[in-house]
Amino acid sequence: MTAGHSVGPVGKDTSPATVVGVDFGTLSARAVVIRADDGTELGTGAAEFASGAIERSLPIAAAGPLPPDWALQDPADWRSALGAAVRAALADARVPRESVIGIGTDFTACTVVPAMADGTPLCELPGLRERPHAWPKLWKHHAAQDQADRITDLAHERAEPWIARYGGRISAEWQFAKALQVLEEDPEVYGRVARWIEAADWIIWQLTGTETRNACTAGYKGIYQDGHYPSREYLAALNPGFADFADTRLAVPALSALGSRAGSLTAAGAALTGLTEGIAVATGNVDAHVSAPAARATDPGQMLAIMGTSTCHVMNGSFLAGVPGICGVVDGGIIAGAYGYEAGQSAVGDIFAWWIGQGVPEAYADEAGRQGQSLHEYLTKRTRGRPVGYHGLVALDWMGGNRSILVDHHLSGVIVGLTLATPPEDVYLALLESTAFGTRVIVEAFEAGGLPVTEFVVAGGLKRNHALMQIYADVLRRPVSVASSDQAPAVGSAIHAAVAAGVHADVRCAAKAMGRKEHAAYQPDRARADAYDVLFAEYRTLHDHFAPASNGMLHRLRRLRNEGGAS
Amino acid sequence: MTAGHSVGPVGKDTSPATVVGVDFGTLSARAVVIRADDGTELGTGAAEFASGAIERSLPIAAAGPLPPDWALQDPADWRSALGAAVRAALADARVPRESVIGIGTDFTACTVVPAMADGTPLCELPGLRERPHAWPKLWKHHAAQDQADRITDLAHERAEPWIARYGGRISAEWQFAKALQVLEEDPEVYGRVARWIEAADWIIWQLTGTETRNACTAGYKGIYQDGHYPSREYLAALNPGFADFADTRLAVPALSALGSRAGSLTAAGAALTGLTEGIAVATGNVDAHVSAPAARATDPGQMLAIMGTSTCHVMNGSFLAGVPGICGVVDGGIIAGAYGYEAGQSAVGDIFAWWIGQGVPEAYADEAGRQGQSLHEYLTKRTRGRPVGYHGLVALDWMGGNRSILVDHHLSGVIVGLTLATPPEDVYLALLESTAFGTRVIVEAFEAGGLPVTEFVVAGGLKRNHALMQIYADVLRRPVSVASSDQAPAVGSAIHAAVAAGVHADVRCAAKAMGRKEHAAYQPDRARADAYDVLFAEYRTLHDHFAPASNGMLHRLRRLRNEGGAS
Repeated sequence: MTAGHSVGPVGKDTSPATVVGVDFGTLSARAVVIRADDGTELGTGAAEFASGAIERSLPIAAAGPLPPDWALQDPADWRSALGAAVRAALADARVPRESVIGIGTDFTACTVVPAMADGTPLCELPGLRERPHAWPKLWKHHAAQDQADRITDLAHERAEPWIARYGGRISAEWQFAKALQVLEEDPEVYGRVARWIEAADWIIWQLTGTETRNACTAGYKGIYQDGHYPSREYLAALNPGFADFADTRLAVPALSALGSRAGSLTAAGAALTGLTEGIAVATGNVDAHVSAPAARATDPGQMLAIMGTSTCHVMNGSFLAGVPGICGVVDGGIIAGAYGYEAGQSAVGDIFAWWIGQGVPEAYADEAGRQGQSLHEYLTKRTRGRPVGYHGLVALDWMGGNRSILVDHHLSGVIVGLTLATPPEDVYLALLESTAFGTRVIVEAFEAGGLPVTEFVVAGGLKRNHALMQIYADVLRRPVSVASSDQAPAVGSAIHAAVAAGVHADVRCAAKAMGRKEHAAYQPDRARADAYDVLFAEYRTLHDHFAPASNGMLHRLRRLRNEGGAS
Repeated sequence: MTAGHSVGPVGKDTSPATVVGVDFGTLSARAVVIRADDGTELGTGAAEFASGAIERSLPIAAAGPLPPDWALQDPADWRSALGAAVRAALADARVPRESVIGIGTDFTACTVVPAMADGTPLCELPGLRERPHAWPKLWKHHAAQDQADRITDLAHERAEPWIARYGGRISAEWQFAKALQVLEEDPEVYGRVARWIEAADWIIWQLTGTETRNACTAGYKGIYQDGHYPSREYLAALNPGFADFADTRLAVPALSALGSRAGSLTAAGAALTGLTEGIAVATGNVDAHVSAPAARATDPGQMLAIMGTSTCHVMNGSFLAGVPGICGVVDGGIIAGAYGYEAGQSAVGDIFAWWIGQGVPEAYADEAGRQGQSLHEYLTKRTRGRPVGYHGLVALDWMGGNRSILVDHHLSGVIVGLTLATPPEDVYLALLESTAFGTRVIVEAFEAGGLPVTEFVVAGGLKRNHALMQIYADVLRRPVSVASSDQAPAVGSAIHAAVAAGVHADVRCAAKAMGRKEHAAYQPDRARADAYDVLFAEYRTLHDHFAPASNGMLHRLRRLRNEGGAS
């Protein structure tokens, strides 16, 4: 096995050295095999998680319903999808497994595993399998909002210095809110938790046999800033039983930088993946952040939006700025040596799918079928060429809550301007637009915070939606660049693997050698951009009206829903 | 032919004396034949209007699109549907036409015909058929909002005494706004208008050969109060060319009281209807108001809600009160001798149909089909038994504008509280509820104006929707009575025919003899009523927020829509 900077043919084979990247999404794992020198994509493979996102009931016999806003996952799914996806990618690439000199992975976050000291997930222990709190909580588990509110409020009350790094709010999606929920709702399970570990790091543990913690999730999801977690005093004030949470369940001697080598593939890891024992395993990473080098968006001011079911916005900055409502700023959070800023929208593609899921008129379904188009394509086509605002609608894209800049998962969606003449495609278009408006709010928050956005780059499945990309260019009044790969996270993971294997000096160099994008693929149309300014002003008015600081209606309605009604 | 108070067998036949009522709705005419003594329903018939509501383009060759918010009708449809419906009802009743001693009719309003001096509709003149303004404007023609706003504003500016009778606002649906739109948009057509006449009166003209004007439409839709129309000075201030509008195009020597005999059926009327020449023809009437005696809701405090595509609320009062936002109060507007109050909701059943029209999931359509249920029934069934507010939604029922209490047809619908977990039946239920909340706003306005609502009676097609009726009972916190007849307007028209034919002393007596209802058919559930108070408070907050006085957003969005967008 060759490593180091030489990336010519490996061993006696003539294949170039390759690296494998595996992206653990919400419903599946996708793997790529790429050349370690120039990033050429050689093959891909994917495998779904058998239980997907567990939102209604545990996948065990006689399981009762989960409460509202819960979302769990099964670690067994991760293991088996990993093995299947990597094997499929290798077969697709038609390269020998010996060509693979490193593997990198990325995960959804904060998806967090309550584990034993040896990494065994609690949900795999006899007697705990029926306990929902013993299962990994998926990123979109939104049932810890009360805990998150208390974490935020207490931080402000005590003037904790780290709260400003998170836009002033700690999300219900993150490690502390989720852990505090376990403590308060199932203290017995909490008592069994030895390690509270991001799935991003847990999977590396499976591959290397060693626990590591990456700088990205520790910073963004674990409130690790300036060398430490929140203090014992702070945690004790939240809940006396929580005082030692960080010291005992999170802490490791040192965090691992992104792009560093977490370790080498163990025999067990090799059996799991079908790769060669001993190859480099890159430090764990997050789907959004890991994509930046794949899309060549690692310089300060290059904002990368990874658009799929939800959107993550990541951008490097060369200095520390205060941007209210962002998810976080972490030193080395995207690449080592820069401040990584992150923001997001909880639901994007999920909103479009939700609307389609409400049903479409039979005639539409028939016509789409005849034309061989998806319903998404067909609805989009029906609005093609219409002037901006012809539908008289504006919507708030909060059907999955608001991650930035309000950081509140108990918000909900609003549609305004409906008439008896409003057809479903008009609502669909208004929903597409609402997500672009939501992104504009985020871009404006960055710029108001002193961080100019010099390039807007899109990766993720929605980059293939040309109409949507044009709307984003028009609404943002700026060109939209697009990552070339359809597998930006997996490619990004593979790039990190190449760095971990020593092929490139660092992630930024690797990005230049291996990343790909179409620069300014979409140009804003000036007239439409002007027209969208008008509609965006309405969006912003609605946004500020329904923001919880000025209006509790959405919270009150959510409470009604979560409590099962008022009667 | 027998008339007068004797209502035994007619002529040599042994049939009891009968009367015919014809209800001209938005899309069809429905006729009933009932006994003149006790109102027993003997037969019904219906016929659709071939062109229905003309909202997209005129039903003539090479017609271009109509502007937004337009709605017209074809008088030829009214004539032919009248003939077909009456003949069908007679056949269904199996009574000889000689048994029929009178006919009464009611119409949608304000549906208004621009006519020659002899009653010929302008749209039937060569050279005017292509001119949209030469066609009768249907009640839901909503394109004269600007004119309506000016009519309202000028009335307040000049402190016109009549404006208070209309809740402070003159609707875009009514005679003056629609006529002023013709003058300002097609002065040539306006110049040809000799008579600007409600379809309710125009159809009587067709039957009797004589022009009459009924007290109901003159009062509610024609701003006729205390013996006169708005002054020349007021009209001249609106537009100099409008000064003589009321004097020349509306005025008749005297209005006709409801229940009076407008005249006798002419030979032409007999040929049109298949009835006997010379029988009594009752004065024209309006679908909502004419229903009160059919539902035995003629006493002060009995509010009748005629619920179909839209809802009209009519209620008698024994004195003149000021109720902001009602459609109007007219002396003798429902029955002679009482002050008739009217309010309304522009869209009710239309909103439910709109939602279904957005499409439903295929699985729902399949399952509804298997169970032999309509989609309305199926969606309702899916929410049966759920606690109030479980869906976390609240909607504004303004998809067709707001008739009461905001009197603004350029408002639009709003749905708040949507999440990715919201299924279509939840939105459907929220829409049902929104219309009940809209009704509660109206009931509360009446009561705040000093007119207690002592009984709430429902007529119209939606009375058959048991779930909806129970929601109304719960939201209104009071029992809901329902008219027994499925054809309350047509039965009401027939009751007026019986009075016109001299069978009963007046409409109130006839109502007691011929009307039918189930008193308090639905009782409020106390716990659900309490829960609905919570949700209604959210509705009211939303209502007041989006009301045009406090927020121009819906108007701005509507303007965008009506102008075809901002770009």
